[in-house]
Amino acid sequence: MAAAARLFRGAARAPPALAFARALSSAPPGPAGRGARGAALAAAGALGGLGLALGLWRRHAALAAAREDEEEKELRQRFMAPPVSGLRELRRRRRELRSRMELLIMETQAEVCRALAALDPGASFAVDSWERKEGGGGISCVLQDGEVFEKAGVNVSVVSGLLSEEAARQMRSRGKSLKAKDGKLPFCAMGVSSVIHPKNPHVPTMHFNYRYFEIEEADGTKQWWFGGGTDLTPTYLNEEDAVHFHKTLKEACDKHDPKLYPKYKKWCDDYFYIKHRGERRGIGGIFFDDMDSPSKEEVFQFVKSCAKAVVPCYIPIVKKHCHDSFTPEEKLWQQLRRGRYVEFNLVYDRGTKFGLLTPGSRIESILMSLPLTARWEYMHNPPESSREAEILEVLRNPKDWVH
Amino acid sequence: MAAAARLFRGAARAPPALAFARALSSAPPGPAGRGARGAALAAAGALGGLGLALGLWRRHAALAAAREDEEEKELRQRFMAPPVSGLRELRRRRRELRSRMELLIMETQAEVCRALAALDPGASFAVDSWERKEGGGGISCVLQDGEVFEKAGVNVSVVSGLLSEEAARQMRSRGKSLKAKDGKLPFCAMGVSSVIHPKNPHVPTMHFNYRYFEIEEADGTKQWWFGGGTDLTPTYLNEEDAVHFHKTLKEACDKHDPKLYPKYKKWCDDYFYIKHRGERRGIGGIFFDDMDSPSKEEVFQFVKSCAKAVVPCYIPIVKKHCHDSFTPEEKLWQQLRRGRYVEFNLVYDRGTKFGLLTPGSRIESILMSLPLTARWEYMHNPPESSREAEILEVLRNPKDWVH
Repeated sequence: MAAAARLFRGAARAPPALAFARALSSAPPGPAGRGARGAALAAAGALGGLGLALGLWRRHAALAAAREDEEEKELRQRFMAPPVSGLRELRRRRRELRSRMELLIMETQAEVCRALAALDPGASFAVDSWERKEGGGGISCVLQDGEVFEKAGVNVSVVSGLLSEEAARQMRSRGKSLKAKDGKLPFCAMGVSSVIHPKNPHVPTMHFNYRYFEIEEADGTKQWWFGGGTDLTPTYLNEEDAVHFHKTLKEACDKHDPKLYPKYKKWCDDYFYIKHRGERRGIGGIFFDDMDSPSKEEVFQFVKSCAKAVVPCYIPIVKKHCHDSFTPEEKLWQQLRRGRYVEFNLVYDRGTKFGLLTPGSRIESILMSLPLTARWEYMHNPPESSREAEILEVLRNPKDWVH
Repeated sequence: MAAAARLFRGAARAPPALAFARALSSAPPGPAGRGARGAALAAAGALGGLGLALGLWRRHAALAAAREDEEEKELRQRFMAPPVSGLRELRRRRRELRSRMELLIMETQAEVCRALAALDPGASFAVDSWERKEGGGGISCVLQDGEVFEKAGVNVSVVSGLLSEEAARQMRSRGKSLKAKDGKLPFCAMGVSSVIHPKNPHVPTMHFNYRYFEIEEADGTKQWWFGGGTDLTPTYLNEEDAVHFHKTLKEACDKHDPKLYPKYKKWCDDYFYIKHRGERRGIGGIFFDDMDSPSKEEVFQFVKSCAKAVVPCYIPIVKKHCHDSFTPEEKLWQQLRRGRYVEFNLVYDRGTKFGLLTPGSRIESILMSLPLTARWEYMHNPPESSREAEILEVLRNPKDWVH
């Protein structure tokens, strides 16, 4: 697994343009480039004039360089790092859903990172591109110990290879069985996932994840499905924020089908349940898995709406509270809630558990969801009618925030 | 689940004598007490003299009170709280292994708590007796945020009831199948378990656990086994401490069979393995499970030796380093290692997982093993040849400390 640390912003390391140039120069030239160069050299040979040939070659090289500059500029504007599948490959297969989804998760990563970085001017995202030896790779963007954010990670991964029937069954929450050729199933999985832990206890933690799977069965048929969700974990309850968050998600869902929000809101409350504590991780949002109807295109458009809702869901809440004053007692309560976040992620979260058990997965990217700091006190019980008891109440009995 | 908070030491709350008196007075009088009182009253009636009867009754009452005082004194000296099964019941069944094991775990709890409290004079153990509605209960002793100890918990539990065949199978690491009557197996499980997290990064974390199980099969035969272990998790390596710790354990084992230490040392290194990190939780010690030979008596004597070795294993190391000076960087490294401790306990530890999934288990007692504070940094890699790299090396490649 090769990890090249690069920086999106910040003066101390190489500027992003250089980083991109380095990454792009290691990619083999595309077939179009090779073909044009060959034709130019053949033409030069036929004419027999070295001067003319050189002139043509120079002109071609200048055009190719301009095209590369243009591509690099586009990449820099749109993404945090070059996409795992390569921009040319994504363009060549631009009509395929795999390519469109990879572009969407890359754009979402960049959108969210930029929105966060704009709120935390002293900090910068470390950008790591990594490869998976079994196929594919990813880009992890992590901002740590900033002024506004304690730890903010936005991770893209695009992996492919062969799965065992058992592993494939485990990947689907409904556990459908799949028919493999020689016991192995070619698969492709991609997604963007993120956890944002702010410093100020009045700014909630936010998590989102949007993902796409494809598995090819023995007879060549492809199974595909989408999953995802966005959810909020406040340290203290602010009803106005809760309503804004859920309303923004509801609007994104309602554009596609008014049945979706209520169904996925409930799924979210059920999924993020810390059973041994009898409470949810946060005040919910939406969560769905195994979504494979009405059609690939329609589900993709729904997922796109959800991904585009992440910034308007969350960023206004951060802006509103990131300069709120807070007491040491409020910080302590935040740390105890962080402890519960760790409990959920390590004991129950399907994605984390699957990642930890999968050989070749990138542990640092999986566990970037854990907070920078957390706390566990024996028998901590907030007093009745306190603001701490108020949030516990809605974690124990989820509320309907938009009706 | 009723939890009565009491204090072993410290001026702010009720002194232990009062606490014990309160706990004892709620217990029904034993059959011996009732019988003697009845005989005294009958004698008084036969003589017909009210004065004489009253005198006899007073004398008897004074004797009974003296006996209760004596018992309370003994309890106070020997234990942190009255035993779950009641001292009289334990005395009545004093020859049974269950009773002897319950006394051993109670004594171990008190021994360890007192040794720790003596090193942290400003702090005090909160003592909670709790009951399990399905049968049995426990005593949790927790010292939190002291001067020497960040969090020190020593927990006793004695539970009994009916197990499903599946649950019983899971309780044994070798997964033996057991024949149940009507699908249920009467069982009894007891143990002492403890995790000590000191403040100073030069004092290691220590964990121990000694436990006994009995399951009755349909034909009345009883399956029984012991399990346990003691292990050390330093933030920085101190070879002298590692050798002292392992040597003390080896001596305890060697008294019974020279084959035990090497076998259980390896089991410990294998068990406390954080697979996704490729490293052990600490520098090991001993660990064993399913121990049911050569005989109940011999295994009990071995477990007793191990339990008695806890204080000499660990306390000299605490004494030696608890006043060592340390830097903020050393404290930070300790916090990162605490994060790994949390990862092991929540992702891999069989006891924790079993506890979290068992209805009616006391979550606060199970999760008291988690440190007060922990930290996760993305991509933290200590520099080569640093003291941080030195401990990682032995966590990745366990050493033989006593040969």
